[in-house]
Amino acid sequence: MPKITPQEFDAIARNEVPLVGYLDISIDEIGEGTASGRALYREEFLRPGGTVSGPLLMALADFVMYAAILGKIGRVELAVTTNLNINFLRRPAPKDVLAHAKLIKIGKRLAVGEVDMYSDGEEDMIAHVTSTYSIPPLTPVL
Amino acid sequence: MPKITPQEFDAIARNEVPLVGYLDISIDEIGEGTASGRALYREEFLRPGGTVSGPLLMALADFVMYAAILGKIGRVELAVTTNLNINFLRRPAPKDVLAHAKLIKIGKRLAVGEVDMYSDGEEDMIAHVTSTYSIPPLTPVL
Amino acid sequence: MPKITPQEFDAIARNEVPLVGYLDISIDEIGEGTASGRALYREEFLRPGGTVSGPLLMALADFVMYAAILGKIGRVELAVTTNLNINFLRRPAPKDVLAHAKLIKIGKRLAVGEVDMYSDGEEDMIAHVTSTYSIPPLTPVL
Amino acid sequence: MPKITPQEFDAIARNEVPLVGYLDISIDEIGEGTASGRALYREEFLRPGGTVSGPLLMALADFVMYAAILGKIGRVELAVTTNLNINFLRRPAPKDVLAHAKLIKIGKRLAVGEVDMYSDGEEDMIAHVTSTYSIPPLTPVL
Repeated sequence: MPKITPQEFDAIARNEVPLVGYLDISIDEIGEGTASGRALYREEFLRPGGTVSGPLLMALADFVMYAAILGKIGRVELAVTTNLNINFLRRPAPKDVLAHAKLIKIGKRLAVGEVDMYSDGEEDMIAHVTSTYSIPPLTPVL
Repeated sequence: MPKITPQEFDAIARNEVPLVGYLDISIDEIGEGTASGRALYREEFLRPGGTVSGPLLMALADFVMYAAILGKIGRVELAVTTNLNINFLRRPAPKDVLAHAKLIKIGKRLAVGEVDMYSDGEEDMIAHVTSTYSIPPLTPVL
Repeated sequence: MPKITPQEFDAIARNEVPLVGYLDISIDEIGEGTASGRALYREEFLRPGGTVSGPLLMALADFVMYAAILGKIGRVELAVTTNLNINFLRRPAPKDVLAHAKLIKIGKRLAVGEVDMYSDGEEDMIAHVTSTYSIPPLTPVL
Repeated sequence: MPKITPQEFDAIARNEVPLVGYLDISIDEIGEGTASGRALYREEFLRPGGTVSGPLLMALADFVMYAAILGKIGRVELAVTTNLNINFLRRPAPKDVLAHAKLIKIGKRLAVGEVDMYSDGEEDMIAHVTSTYSIPPLTPVL
């Protein structure tokens, strides 16, 4: 069973990562080494060409990975991203962006996962991310 | 000589990439295939551990690369990121973040560059980015 | 239906990419935007720690992506890798290495895919790759 | 002063990473957090288009990073690559390939560096690599 619920995670995030609140990013679901999230569409996220800007996608991807990891190992808020690689595949429509993270490795020191991203209601993947988090040696008791 | 000044670039950005305005990201300098930018520190950019959050760094890196490319090839706003890879090297202090982009290839279809990132006033690099932009086949006349 | 069979592909490869022959890399299967391949174990591929060396995995990953792309678009041998990102997840046992590529985008200019890699007979992924190929504007008629 | 000479490093490599011997890869220079290496040109390293194949470049890049790290921290042969990201920038001419690695972070657990690659005697970079090594917690006494 996941060690944290989407509600608990969003509460942490809203308190401790205010940027996420501004960007209207939230987590819908946390499973066994997985998490899904959403960035609500806002016109101010557009870039030339009328598509959703890349930094919003990167923020969302980083955030759902964080949710997947905390779902797996509990409230280790000090886990930090060490590497993120994103391929932008298709122009993201002016819609909500959905992201699905899946861990492919949880070690003692490093966790690695991938994130598939979609425009809401569309079939083709718009971006694909792989990302590594470093897990601190002493995990806080919370 | 660069084909665009930091002032012209910031004007485009504020109009066409509103997210950048919210994040207080601006461009200080555009050279021959180079650009430098800054994200002004705000407490709401912090994450657990009291460091500046990764998505802010990724947004800044993407933006200075965009400035370096437009400085080289002119107002091709429809150039889009196809790949971005970031290594987070050290915890970014609660300070302004500085980013220096340098193009290492400008082809007809792809431009590639790297971005070195620092906390203002500190010596050690906090993050390193390589990134690829796709340049549209027909560049708009502007 | 794939535009090339594993046999045709291996014939091309043995002729035109001799390194692949030396490394005992071959393609087992080519599907719709997918390909699977194998690197036969040899003691000389080991590195300190008794695990299969990273460069062998990278060679195999690059090669199965090439097979997946030629399976999709036909004999466009001049397609070239522009980016490859690999995460090494677990120490590869002294065994054959298997790789499964899946394209996640085939555009006119760029193809992107991911590759999952395993030690033969084992369950956990040992490495994960994402990679981009550039497709030449004029594809030869063959 | 570097903790290992190119001669010592090449001796280790020839013994413990036989693939490197086959590929005619060697280290020319090890400095303070830097290393330079070379892959001797052989016709069998070519790929369609008459250029040096990508896997050779990846092998060389991985190897010079390893040399740079051992030069910095001594004979920690069990350091292993966790991530490698390569951008292929220009078609590598049928010539020796040169690679220059520079560490941008040496932590207790992770080392990160970048590698610039050139065709011998040519000016333009042909490939750029960033790579992360994991350093084992207990380093062997040698």
